[in-house]
Amino acid sequence: MSTTDHTHDPAAQSWVSSANEATGDFPIQNLPFGAFRRAGSDEDVRIGVAIGDQILDLKLAAERGRWSTAVQVLLQPLAQGDLNAFMAQPPVARLALRHALFEALLAGSKQEAALRGALLQQADAEMQLPCRINDYTDFYTGIHHAVTVGKLFRPDNPLLPNYKWVPIGYHGRSSSIVSSGTPLRRPRGQLKPPSAETPVFGASQRIDYELELGLFVGPGNALGEPIAMQDAEDHLFGLCLLNDWSARDIQPWEYQPLGPFLAKNFGSTISPWIVTMEALAPFRCGFERPAGDPAPLPYLDSEANRQQGSLDIELEVWLQTAAMREQDLAPVRLVRSNFRHAYWTLAQMLTHHASNGCNLNPGDLLGTGTQSGPLPEEAGSLLELTQGGKQAFNLPNGESRTFIQDGDTVILRAHAERAGARRIGFGDCAGRLLPALA
Amino acid sequence: MSTTDHTHDPAAQSWVSSANEATGDFPIQNLPFGAFRRAGSDEDVRIGVAIGDQILDLKLAAERGRWSTAVQVLLQPLAQGDLNAFMAQPPVARLALRHALFEALLAGSKQEAALRGALLQQADAEMQLPCRINDYTDFYTGIHHAVTVGKLFRPDNPLLPNYKWVPIGYHGRSSSIVSSGTPLRRPRGQLKPPSAETPVFGASQRIDYELELGLFVGPGNALGEPIAMQDAEDHLFGLCLLNDWSARDIQPWEYQPLGPFLAKNFGSTISPWIVTMEALAPFRCGFERPAGDPAPLPYLDSEANRQQGSLDIELEVWLQTAAMREQDLAPVRLVRSNFRHAYWTLAQMLTHHASNGCNLNPGDLLGTGTQSGPLPEEAGSLLELTQGGKQAFNLPNGESRTFIQDGDTVILRAHAERAGARRIGFGDCAGRLLPALA
Repeated sequence: MSTTDHTHDPAAQSWVSSANEATGDFPIQNLPFGAFRRAGSDEDVRIGVAIGDQILDLKLAAERGRWSTAVQVLLQPLAQGDLNAFMAQPPVARLALRHALFEALLAGSKQEAALRGALLQQADAEMQLPCRINDYTDFYTGIHHAVTVGKLFRPDNPLLPNYKWVPIGYHGRSSSIVSSGTPLRRPRGQLKPPSAETPVFGASQRIDYELELGLFVGPGNALGEPIAMQDAEDHLFGLCLLNDWSARDIQPWEYQPLGPFLAKNFGSTISPWIVTMEALAPFRCGFERPAGDPAPLPYLDSEANRQQGSLDIELEVWLQTAAMREQDLAPVRLVRSNFRHAYWTLAQMLTHHASNGCNLNPGDLLGTGTQSGPLPEEAGSLLELTQGGKQAFNLPNGESRTFIQDGDTVILRAHAERAGARRIGFGDCAGRLLPALA
Repeated sequence: MSTTDHTHDPAAQSWVSSANEATGDFPIQNLPFGAFRRAGSDEDVRIGVAIGDQILDLKLAAERGRWSTAVQVLLQPLAQGDLNAFMAQPPVARLALRHALFEALLAGSKQEAALRGALLQQADAEMQLPCRINDYTDFYTGIHHAVTVGKLFRPDNPLLPNYKWVPIGYHGRSSSIVSSGTPLRRPRGQLKPPSAETPVFGASQRIDYELELGLFVGPGNALGEPIAMQDAEDHLFGLCLLNDWSARDIQPWEYQPLGPFLAKNFGSTISPWIVTMEALAPFRCGFERPAGDPAPLPYLDSEANRQQGSLDIELEVWLQTAAMREQDLAPVRLVRSNFRHAYWTLAQMLTHHASNGCNLNPGDLLGTGTQSGPLPEEAGSLLELTQGGKQAFNLPNGESRTFIQDGDTVILRAHAERAGARRIGFGDCAGRLLPALA
């Protein structure tokens, strides 16, 4: 896809006036997909597209808009609330619908009158998980996270020898993935500080966030049929934010030899909108491996991936404590990072995952792993930011934190901007921690 | 449940005469659930119950049988092909349907004439996955497996310090779970022998089976709400056999620090019939921890679990090579083991999984981990049986093996028998390995 595609024209304006605000997440150049219910209703879940502070309800849009037959066919599963069926379509279908929606929402469009009645205020919607997530895999592409966390355990040898060869990943739990705004309960689990003789069962005292992106798979592959690097892009649907909540005191005791389990599966929060690869096209960039690093093995390498496989997406973590809410204080930003630091690209994650024939399905979620930047203040987790809980940080209202406290709300945000392109954003990925069960 | 329940009467006979053969897997005391299609048809998948060499088609049975209103309600989701909806019911519902089906299939039942037309030969059915498996978790409860495999890596300290405290588990891949009879392709992956400087990408040379049982979850729990040990049994639906195929040369290079990934997710084979906990009631037994072992933490302990938490289920691995098939030689048994050796019970697996609030759903699959017995010949994997590939074993036709070769079919079998009870079996869990892609 060329970035001269007119759906990326930074000057394009929508007849939905809130979409034209310069710092908004959802201008007409974005058009992310999400699932929603009218607040308080028990209607079936609907699929919509965010535009400004509104949602274009695709059920109503399919009924009321004037669409070509080809676009009607594309809209059909979406009108029925089935984003997975649309995700299974090839990129050309997504691009065709993107163009149709762009034209329909463009200032001066003849569709305005018909589609005004298909809009819903985002404030009046309860966002749901955007699609059925059958399988969830979490990768570990943030090399600065891997090094910093590795240093806590192995100061002389922080990065394991496989890191620069294998896009490390593991299976996560899909049932406990929740949409932004869903509160999560502080988990209990087996805790055994190194100094203790035996473990105890109790509430975790070291709850952390992890700043990640989540990749939604588009078309899948059959069991036994890998996906080559040159085909990988066709299988990428889009991205959301992902907070991989972690209990740092459950993890070290449980994770040998099979990996993290209850330290991670008590809840994972995702942002409600899937920003499509088509919308992200202007923010592609290359990634240069540091001198001396091995080249990726041929099955993970392609010229296109080297030139354009990475993405320049600004990432942020914000925090609002219970006291801040009571004092009417806005969330504060803790860190900024960027996805361009990731050591492995989305295409490499996907190709590696399917390289043994493992079958991916439309709607599967692939986490990128924690996206810390190279600087200490770009830490994608508190484990890094507070050096394993040893170095508290202060908040403007006088509170301090090493790990997340009950009542704290963690908000992940992301946006992409670049000269010559319109800024697009992801919307909030927010979750509040509730106290543990007694 | 009492084992004097008359559905466990070993003398009970069915009007389906093949169910009365002494060594059959599916007598009237068993009544496992499965999903099938008539061979060659493209009908919707139906739910059935195995009886002798037949399947009672629950769609036809619901239409043609004479059932109480209560039983009609229970049959409704099953008649619609939705085993998950039935799995969500409490154990009392399962017991009620078990009794109704038992009476209907009992020799002399007035239902015989009506239900004869609801039978299908198992030979004429294509078995499918029995239900929708949303999430799959694999545990590691086989302590003899953990010790033997541990010895290969750490001769002086084979068992990690958490093993006797934590029911170790990790998330698996649900998309690549296949029903018995589905061939699997030998995976390719990154291989790096310890002596090599750098990895290469190629076909795995060390394909292994793992002899496991799979637990299907019945009623689930809400996110944030653990399941106490005293309630755990209510959430257990039934068991199948599970072959957790493993690529032993992919695993060591990829698995640090987050656990096995592509070494395990290229395919997992399950047997098609779910043997219910009600059918397994007569085979309950206790498990005594060796003297000196720590008691389970209170959240994993109950008197009932100590007395009756384990299950006496005989497990077997059989092999038939391509040459044996050509020579018309039957499969040979490689090993026998028993599930009563498992260090953690099904209830402990489930309670631990939900102890942090992780939500389980009806139809979720929990693997038990490899069930090796205490003796070398009771090895649940070739890794153990051949000491990491160092000690080949010979087959009666003169072939030998260290790991699985292309064209080999691995068959897992299981049955339970005990004085005063009718023997019940699980049916075959079979899978053949196809050559790798070129």
